[in-house]
Amino acid sequence: MSSSSGRYGSQSQYAPSAPQQPPYSSYYQTSTSNAPPPSNSSSNYNYANVSSSGYSTFPPGTPQDVITSFQMVDRDRSGFIDERELQQALSSGFHHFNLRTIRLLMFLFKNPHQPLAVGPKEFAALWSCLGQWRGIFERYDKDRSGKIDPLELRDALYGIGYAVPGSVLQLLLSKYGDGSVRRVELGFDSFVECGMIIKGLTDKFKEKDTRYTGSATLSYDAFMTMVLPFLVSYD
Amino acid sequence: MSSSSGRYGSQSQYAPSAPQQPPYSSYYQTSTSNAPPPSNSSSNYNYANVSSSGYSTFPPGTPQDVITSFQMVDRDRSGFIDERELQQALSSGFHHFNLRTIRLLMFLFKNPHQPLAVGPKEFAALWSCLGQWRGIFERYDKDRSGKIDPLELRDALYGIGYAVPGSVLQLLLSKYGDGSVRRVELGFDSFVECGMIIKGLTDKFKEKDTRYTGSATLSYDAFMTMVLPFLVSYD
Repeated sequence: MSSSSGRYGSQSQYAPSAPQQPPYSSYYQTSTSNAPPPSNSSSNYNYANVSSSGYSTFPPGTPQDVITSFQMVDRDRSGFIDERELQQALSSGFHHFNLRTIRLLMFLFKNPHQPLAVGPKEFAALWSCLGQWRGIFERYDKDRSGKIDPLELRDALYGIGYAVPGSVLQLLLSKYGDGSVRRVELGFDSFVECGMIIKGLTDKFKEKDTRYTGSATLSYDAFMTMVLPFLVSYD
Repeated sequence: MSSSSGRYGSQSQYAPSAPQQPPYSSYYQTSTSNAPPPSNSSSNYNYANVSSSGYSTFPPGTPQDVITSFQMVDRDRSGFIDERELQQALSSGFHHFNLRTIRLLMFLFKNPHQPLAVGPKEFAALWSCLGQWRGIFERYDKDRSGKIDPLELRDALYGIGYAVPGSVLQLLLSKYGDGSVRRVELGFDSFVECGMIIKGLTDKFKEKDTRYTGSATLSYDAFMTMVLPFLVSYD
């Protein structure tokens, strides 16, 4: 693991926004930044309200525009919205996400009882999470180009506590663009996708690496169960 | 691990084609079936020919129809074909794969020097591999419906040496269809996609579990590097 600290030769140059970070001691860090990393899960909502109909309702304090965005697309008032409706709802507040990103978001924020739909509680959690990712995007898009380049992505992930090895980021970014990783530019939707994949997989791995040694022992079952949710969302 | 043997209560009923298999001793098995499992990699081609131009050529013995299929789409005679050309070439011999599957195939069979293109050697390996998957598909599509259902998929994977836990298959299949895993029906392209994902991830895991104990110790780097290639192929 000691080699990891030297992997980014000029780390102080590329991570200027995180001077408060401790020196790299492992590939990923515990979160020490002031801003909490965006959550991929709605499990941090402690006040889940369930209406008399059995459907969850919005958590207390949910901003009105979030509620309105949900209700605008939930035309049949079923209390759940599908992927197309979610795409439409998020377009008004954030970005026109492609369906692949929408499916990843749905998978990460799904209601356990309605795997192909999102209810008010999940929607509020997702909206809040995307708001945090947007803040990070704007903070690290230093030239205000509306795009994040590979170094900005690395800095952004570092800023929220994920010191991702260059080789891993290269592998991820090799799937974008025309094959030249250096020239890749991520719009907000791809940035969210990359961020959620890195954060999601890293958090899953950390759960198994409780002492933060940088390695973990996994059963085959656990490995597959960790990984499959992040794979392609199928048609 | 002992619980794995009982996970499929009626395994002899659902895996009638594999009576020669030893009892489950781990979640995955070493390959003991007569038919070799399809390879995801061209590395088993020992006789890579490289022409004087530096491009690889077809391995000796490559069937003429494979060569013709490649040459038909390689109109500029560059010696490499891109994803659209690969899609077109495979349509003639196999199936009209969707671009997502094509990208997964390209990623698994890519030429290390041309990550977004496939050369003759990779194409021949891919064609041969798909031929093997087609044979398996036809063998396990017992009712000749042209579709593989979840139990047939499980049997097919078992038949080539992968005893995948039901929970893992459920998670994979939950991304197909309308949410009801039991009703999922996989066409050949989705079958290939599922098969390559299971085989690819399992093989990667087995490389780290050399004594076949059913668990492995992975560094964070190794974990991410194993997993990312199977993730979404991006636009």
